[in-house]
Amino acid sequence: MNPTTAELSQNLIASYAQVGGINHLDGKNLPSKTAIASITCKLLQLLFPGFFDDRSIHSSALVTVTTDLLAEVRLRLQAEIGKSLEYRSPGEVPRAEIGALAQSIAGELLASLPRLREILQTDVEAAYQGDPAALSAEEVIVAYPFTEAIAVQRLAHELYLEQVPLIPRIMTEWAHGRTGLDLHPGARIGTYFFIDHCTGTVIGETSVIGSHVKMYQGVGLVARSLSGGQALRGQKRHPTLEDRVTVYAGATIMGGDTVVGAGSTIGANVFLTHSVPANSLVLQEDARVKVMSKTDRPVDFQI
Amino acid sequence: MNPTTAELSQNLIASYAQVGGINHLDGKNLPSKTAIASITCKLLQLLFPGFFDDRSIHSSALVTVTTDLLAEVRLRLQAEIGKSLEYRSPGEVPRAEIGALAQSIAGELLASLPRLREILQTDVEAAYQGDPAALSAEEVIVAYPFTEAIAVQRLAHELYLEQVPLIPRIMTEWAHGRTGLDLHPGARIGTYFFIDHCTGTVIGETSVIGSHVKMYQGVGLVARSLSGGQALRGQKRHPTLEDRVTVYAGATIMGGDTVVGAGSTIGANVFLTHSVPANSLVLQEDARVKVMSKTDRPVDFQI
Amino acid sequence: MNPTTAELSQNLIASYAQVGGINHLDGKNLPSKTAIASITCKLLQLLFPGFFDDRSIHSSALVTVTTDLLAEVRLRLQAEIGKSLEYRSPGEVPRAEIGALAQSIAGELLASLPRLREILQTDVEAAYQGDPAALSAEEVIVAYPFTEAIAVQRLAHELYLEQVPLIPRIMTEWAHGRTGLDLHPGARIGTYFFIDHCTGTVIGETSVIGSHVKMYQGVGLVARSLSGGQALRGQKRHPTLEDRVTVYAGATIMGGDTVVGAGSTIGANVFLTHSVPANSLVLQEDARVKVMSKTDRPVDFQI
Repeated sequence: MNPTTAELSQNLIASYAQVGGINHLDGKNLPSKTAIASITCKLLQLLFPGFFDDRSIHSSALVTVTTDLLAEVRLRLQAEIGKSLEYRSPGEVPRAEIGALAQSIAGELLASLPRLREILQTDVEAAYQGDPAALSAEEVIVAYPFTEAIAVQRLAHELYLEQVPLIPRIMTEWAHGRTGLDLHPGARIGTYFFIDHCTGTVIGETSVIGSHVKMYQGVGLVARSLSGGQALRGQKRHPTLEDRVTVYAGATIMGGDTVVGAGSTIGANVFLTHSVPANSLVLQEDARVKVMSKTDRPVDFQI
Repeated sequence: MNPTTAELSQNLIASYAQVGGINHLDGKNLPSKTAIASITCKLLQLLFPGFFDDRSIHSSALVTVTTDLLAEVRLRLQAEIGKSLEYRSPGEVPRAEIGALAQSIAGELLASLPRLREILQTDVEAAYQGDPAALSAEEVIVAYPFTEAIAVQRLAHELYLEQVPLIPRIMTEWAHGRTGLDLHPGARIGTYFFIDHCTGTVIGETSVIGSHVKMYQGVGLVARSLSGGQALRGQKRHPTLEDRVTVYAGATIMGGDTVVGAGSTIGANVFLTHSVPANSLVLQEDARVKVMSKTDRPVDFQI
Repeated sequence: MNPTTAELSQNLIASYAQVGGINHLDGKNLPSKTAIASITCKLLQLLFPGFFDDRSIHSSALVTVTTDLLAEVRLRLQAEIGKSLEYRSPGEVPRAEIGALAQSIAGELLASLPRLREILQTDVEAAYQGDPAALSAEEVIVAYPFTEAIAVQRLAHELYLEQVPLIPRIMTEWAHGRTGLDLHPGARIGTYFFIDHCTGTVIGETSVIGSHVKMYQGVGLVARSLSGGQALRGQKRHPTLEDRVTVYAGATIMGGDTVVGAGSTIGANVFLTHSVPANSLVLQEDARVKVMSKTDRPVDFQI
């Protein structure tokens, strides 16, 4: 009825031996989620100097602050990438080469920061221009969850392209937990991107998104035929949105061969499963909802 | 115009005396949210050894690590359960018996870990098989918010069945805040469960879910006639999903007598308020949405 | 191929000089997000004494605890408000007056706490009465994300009315990150408000909400014609909900001139773009969804 702790421990350890697959004992090192969260924060500081720090940085200290931060991030990133590379298919990366490969990938990610800054500046501008509630670009950077989520996705996408296992997804899920925005590291996203409110929007792995695309909360770019499961890996399963597409809250766009033509607008709560030409306006047939007086409601329908 | 801090304090304390119900002074001890969050993290470490730790565990250290962790969790859990039991209906648990009852419930929860591990292994397998973007079971465990949320719900459900007040809901709301997935501790959930993306999905207290059920983000298993409020407590208010049901993003299924038959698929954004037989495919009537050129849009409709 | 850290630093700093707008160097001090998060936690402790603390407070210690906390919050709040006021339009607040203005606004916010407590008590009561899963008012306060989110919005709204830049939005986005509920500090919200489950619900800046309004997850009170962007700032862009309106999960209500009459109910997933009279019941035309056997599904439609 009330087992001793030693008994509890014995039974639990017996279960570790029996129920495999959800243990991680004596195995390859997993990258540390805590370390990756901390590295990601520091990468945000490098991308937006002075915004993610607790105090503004004086330009006289900039060289020292930046170089020190880069040196620290570089070392820690190399270590985590090294652990992750052990999860590539067996034999894909010979053990002796993992260290050098990790070093090279970490260096490339840091070298890409100036290029990512150019893209992120277009995202911040799109957010400021697109939201009348935004009072300044500063507000967009310090207060909008979108800024953090898109910056993390663009960083993770670089590692995804280098086929680093685990880390890209840990990075975007860290941002997902903080912002409610689930951007897969595999998605290819153009410039001047903006998602307002963020919560619940999901962009799947093989989505392709043009420039000047705007979205709202609860949008899904998702896969069809998911019963295919692992057999579909690597196929294009998520839609393509061309330039200047707007997608309102709660719309779901499905399928790898679905293309939303340039300049189109997709209404709220639409469920779209096929392509539409450029400059389309897509609405639910019932966009003019049924309004009745409560005294007239059908007796068999109750909510 | 600019009151002194002493005046501010005086007025605020006067409001504590006047506005009751949202004070917690001189009362029973509340369980500590911080303590429950920390205990829940350690329970996750016990369920998935090596995955929620910062470094992998060598099997030579396993007995020591596990026994120490169990001993610590047991003591802290007992203390929090003891505080919570004071919130049971007055007189339901005599004060003198609270300590022994708390000790027994904590012991039972820890004794259930091997059984919960067997169930959770089926959930991890369902996630890996169901999502072509998943590269490995390891990725599902370290990076998918679903893993954390379902593990916490299955733990909290054990305490819910023992009628422990407050703690089960504090545990699932902790996970809700981290993952966006709102799984009530009361819900009965079968094996091989998977929710992809998670954010915004809500599963109400009296939901019953079969095995091999798959869901996406923004799904609701919710209650009808909510105007009944507290009068409805204890009634089955949320739907039943039989085995092998799939529910796409944004669908809402309502009502305690609504049963979705085995093998059915519910399309995105469907609002379903009645039962459907086995192997049904349920879609919005307007699943073929209205597509028009922007130049042809009706003048009175503007989004 | 593998640049030195000094080279990486040089290139990144060059990018800081070239790509402006997302740097914050040598500028005005930004308010610290960390400090604002910590201040907000302490304001929650002052609003709900004993609930957001780790242990219950004995009334003999209440004067000391409250006065000390008020004194600390006051000083830190003044400092952050002072930094924020520098972001008002140039010359709007002369530099020499910023300190006094910050002091006065901080004092007013703290003086408003008793009034906010009266309103928040109605919200807690509405949540308890409205949700049969709620076991006690205590559970609503310690476990419901809504309590935290609405308390933070009501605090931030006070600072919004005083035209403090940045801080109100940082406060509500802090709560948004923790709860998934995006309540803009500008929204005017009546008493006895309740949102169940919270995740994904968005209430825009110029929304006006009556008393006894109830909502669920995934609801949007959003703006039309967003292509207007910054030109629309200051206009009423979001809907008005009169007293006793209920909005089910996933419904989107759009437009500044849209008024939902008192006592109306808006069904799940409805997309409403025009006003409805009092006591309306608004449903999707297709609320009776299309149910077919999977063997009868049209060959060209596949999900």
